[in-house]
Amino acid sequence: MVSVLLPRTKVFFTGRQAIRVVAQRYKSAQAEAHLHHMHHQNGLKGDVYPAEKMGLDDLNENVLKAKYAVRGAIPMLAAELESQLQKDPNSVAFDKIVSANIGNPQQLQQKPLTFYRQVLSLLQYPDVLKHGEENLIKSKLYQRDAIARAKRLLNDIGTVGAYSSSQGVQGIRETVAKFITRRDDGEKAYADDIYLTAGASSAVSYLLSIFCKEQETGVLIPIPQYPLYTATLALNNSHALPYYLDEQSNWSTSPAEIEEVVNKALERNIKPSVLVVINPGNPTGAVLSVEAISQILSIAAKYGILVIADEVYQENVFHGAKFHSMKKVLRNLQREHPGEFDNVQLASLHSTSKGVSGECGQRGGYMEVTGLTNEVKQVITKLASISLCPVVTGQALVDLMVSPPQPGDDSYEVDQKERKTILASLAERAAKLHQTFNSLEGIECQRPEGAMYLFPKLLLPQKAIIAAEHAGMTPDAFYCKSLLEATGICTVPGAGFGQEPGTYHLRTTFLAPGTEWIQQWEAFHKSFYEKYQD
Amino acid sequence: MVSVLLPRTKVFFTGRQAIRVVAQRYKSAQAEAHLHHMHHQNGLKGDVYPAEKMGLDDLNENVLKAKYAVRGAIPMLAAELESQLQKDPNSVAFDKIVSANIGNPQQLQQKPLTFYRQVLSLLQYPDVLKHGEENLIKSKLYQRDAIARAKRLLNDIGTVGAYSSSQGVQGIRETVAKFITRRDDGEKAYADDIYLTAGASSAVSYLLSIFCKEQETGVLIPIPQYPLYTATLALNNSHALPYYLDEQSNWSTSPAEIEEVVNKALERNIKPSVLVVINPGNPTGAVLSVEAISQILSIAAKYGILVIADEVYQENVFHGAKFHSMKKVLRNLQREHPGEFDNVQLASLHSTSKGVSGECGQRGGYMEVTGLTNEVKQVITKLASISLCPVVTGQALVDLMVSPPQPGDDSYEVDQKERKTILASLAERAAKLHQTFNSLEGIECQRPEGAMYLFPKLLLPQKAIIAAEHAGMTPDAFYCKSLLEATGICTVPGAGFGQEPGTYHLRTTFLAPGTEWIQQWEAFHKSFYEKYQD
Repeated sequence: MVSVLLPRTKVFFTGRQAIRVVAQRYKSAQAEAHLHHMHHQNGLKGDVYPAEKMGLDDLNENVLKAKYAVRGAIPMLAAELESQLQKDPNSVAFDKIVSANIGNPQQLQQKPLTFYRQVLSLLQYPDVLKHGEENLIKSKLYQRDAIARAKRLLNDIGTVGAYSSSQGVQGIRETVAKFITRRDDGEKAYADDIYLTAGASSAVSYLLSIFCKEQETGVLIPIPQYPLYTATLALNNSHALPYYLDEQSNWSTSPAEIEEVVNKALERNIKPSVLVVINPGNPTGAVLSVEAISQILSIAAKYGILVIADEVYQENVFHGAKFHSMKKVLRNLQREHPGEFDNVQLASLHSTSKGVSGECGQRGGYMEVTGLTNEVKQVITKLASISLCPVVTGQALVDLMVSPPQPGDDSYEVDQKERKTILASLAERAAKLHQTFNSLEGIECQRPEGAMYLFPKLLLPQKAIIAAEHAGMTPDAFYCKSLLEATGICTVPGAGFGQEPGTYHLRTTFLAPGTEWIQQWEAFHKSFYEKYQD
Repeated sequence: MVSVLLPRTKVFFTGRQAIRVVAQRYKSAQAEAHLHHMHHQNGLKGDVYPAEKMGLDDLNENVLKAKYAVRGAIPMLAAELESQLQKDPNSVAFDKIVSANIGNPQQLQQKPLTFYRQVLSLLQYPDVLKHGEENLIKSKLYQRDAIARAKRLLNDIGTVGAYSSSQGVQGIRETVAKFITRRDDGEKAYADDIYLTAGASSAVSYLLSIFCKEQETGVLIPIPQYPLYTATLALNNSHALPYYLDEQSNWSTSPAEIEEVVNKALERNIKPSVLVVINPGNPTGAVLSVEAISQILSIAAKYGILVIADEVYQENVFHGAKFHSMKKVLRNLQREHPGEFDNVQLASLHSTSKGVSGECGQRGGYMEVTGLTNEVKQVITKLASISLCPVVTGQALVDLMVSPPQPGDDSYEVDQKERKTILASLAERAAKLHQTFNSLEGIECQRPEGAMYLFPKLLLPQKAIIAAEHAGMTPDAFYCKSLLEATGICTVPGAGFGQEPGTYHLRTTFLAPGTEWIQQWEAFHKSFYEKYQD
């Protein structure tokens, strides 16, 4: 038997300067008041201290108020329905859940690129090379260029089982810098400005942690936005400063509106420190023009605002649209207007989760910073060092993403074919879904040019709005829940992304294979409108 | 030519309620005062707003004050010396850097376990299975049990390229629950209480984000501690409440001291919400007895404090010591004293980075929570969902760590041999280094029982302390810097972990292969003492 101090429900004990009560956690305000009363009547100083479990009241309010709709109420209901479906297939109206709530391509049968996976497989088990490279190639287990890449990466990394530097493996950052230089028509990038990250979300978390000074700070975010930004802002207890995208002109940005938001924040003594741009847009699918980017950079220069360019969908561009990186446009402006844009600070994000890679679960990504002072860059490195390093296989995947097989490499033809198949199929499904929406009464959808999502507007009948109110839900959530229960298609209500007051939207990916689900949606929509017709 | 708003250095413009000055960032307090003066003289209201780059003043103070010594000044100097060594080998006094500053086994030639890497390789490239399992086995590329495990994991996961649930893959959490139940002599664990995490550091980050309410909250941490805790507390702007471990009794905990720290915090109106226990100890190497754990749990029960049990070194136990999990001891106490310990809340952390796995770069880990309410558990899941999911290969590695090959499996014998070699070599080097320290004048070291570190006390001569002062360094940093420059051995000064005022320590891993570096250290130490002898 060990000797222990037993916990008690009420203990009076003597501290150095005060006497305290250790009591059962007070169950109500009255009980608390009573306890305090007793406590002071007994001439005791100090606080009553609960010895019961912590509840929500004991938690950090910033964490409590953070919301992340992409994994919010509707997706949680979908998870419940999924397990119900497995237990009793007859208890639900569909035979599978279609997860259109999150951009998770491989969950929906997008095939990983063979070259990537061959290299990652070799990095995990380099001993396989002891069987002789020529043997492996001859027996078609691995391609020659995959082996060569794995060897180069192992030389840069050492082993994927060791911590790398917190900023990321030097050799991989050099590959990224070369890629950016190539992509931006020769505008030079440097390995020192690259930070490898666990997807783009950890870059957002670093940047907002560093640049947000709680209530002093405001961060301009587009509405609709990807809810990672509002969630991270809530965690940092800073202000979201929404600027609305104009749905009628294909979700374009208005520089006049952005500047107005900046000035209104200043009037409220909030410093607009950061401006978030998502290009191609999530959830809108819009791709920004050079002119739109230039206007945003002008505002950034004028007010000394750091721009976060979330460019994770830069490969997901179709229907003739063209992606222009914020960095390239900035360098052009700096050349055209000497001295005028030198103060601009930019952090551009990319990720292995999207594009033709779609390797969400591998948590690879990078951030390129432009115009930041060395001391600020050191702060980023220090913050990254507290979580040691980004996963090393994810770092390697970044190398593969930015430096795919080239003409003449053994993997080239297969790789090209795989890429084209993925892009064509995404563009086709985007078009099909867009067309279906616009053929239906009560739904309007802008033409998508990029990313993986559509964000249609729901013109809901008054009766549906009233029914939603009766159900205690917002009208968009009511539509999404009805859609889920009728068809198994899981989407996210527009409220999670932000929308003009009085309008209702939803976000859906167009990643799900086949077209059957689109037909089911169409049928659901028609019957929903019939039911709630005014 | 695009049309843009050009940034200007000084602009007067009219907002709705005020007129502002957009000016070059003031370079000094005087300049700022002058600008404000001008501004108000002109009858302008509101603030002067800088349009120049952000500097350290513009950043979040919590991030600025966070320190992480394991990657601090001495390791940064080591990185510089390393690149100097590569450029000009004759410019430094050694021929390689020995990274003894961080527990990074594979960086120092610890071999990854073959079974782990075979499975991970198959998860990355399951197409290899199309070549026929029997062919792969016959040609000795993969063992039969590695293939079977990969298939089971693929069945649970789908693909490592898709986001998993934010809490982690269900099937893997079930494997973890079985492991804990087995490890804790049948005390049952549940998959619902397991959260898969990116190493233990992301679990610490989640827990402290959730349970810290800035200045209201205090977190008890052992001194010396692993600096991740003080760094994460700084980020959350909460109080570190240090409790000292007793060096003379092999770094043991004193329940009386812990309770005193709790009471002193209460007197200062700080709520001691969390108590961190690192067992086996980092940096101390001490392993807690059942009695010591019981005493800590009694304090947790009495004051309603959540315990974080950092048990990442649970496999690294040697020289006859035995690891007891906090959870098992808690369950025993709950059975022996019905009702008395039911309020205890515990989060136990484990990682694939340490132990015989040493897979730091793969970022695998788990957290088991005990006694938390469902609503608090949901908050953890929500917070995890904001970073989408932990890397899926890291999750798979957790499965492998907690469920290694069993007798009869094809990999069993090789796996056992690899494990025993690693453990024996660690125990041997720990003993050798410990023995060397205690044979030297001016250095005292407790006998290590676990983890990967020694934390010897430096009894520095007065002249060394004065020399350190002249160099503008703390005496422990001065010793570490001298050691690094003379031998290439990189360690971390005790100040980074905390130490009794007036005492000086350093932390070193005993991971570096060979014994040559130990001899070099010995020679350095003798000449250092000769030089600074009183």
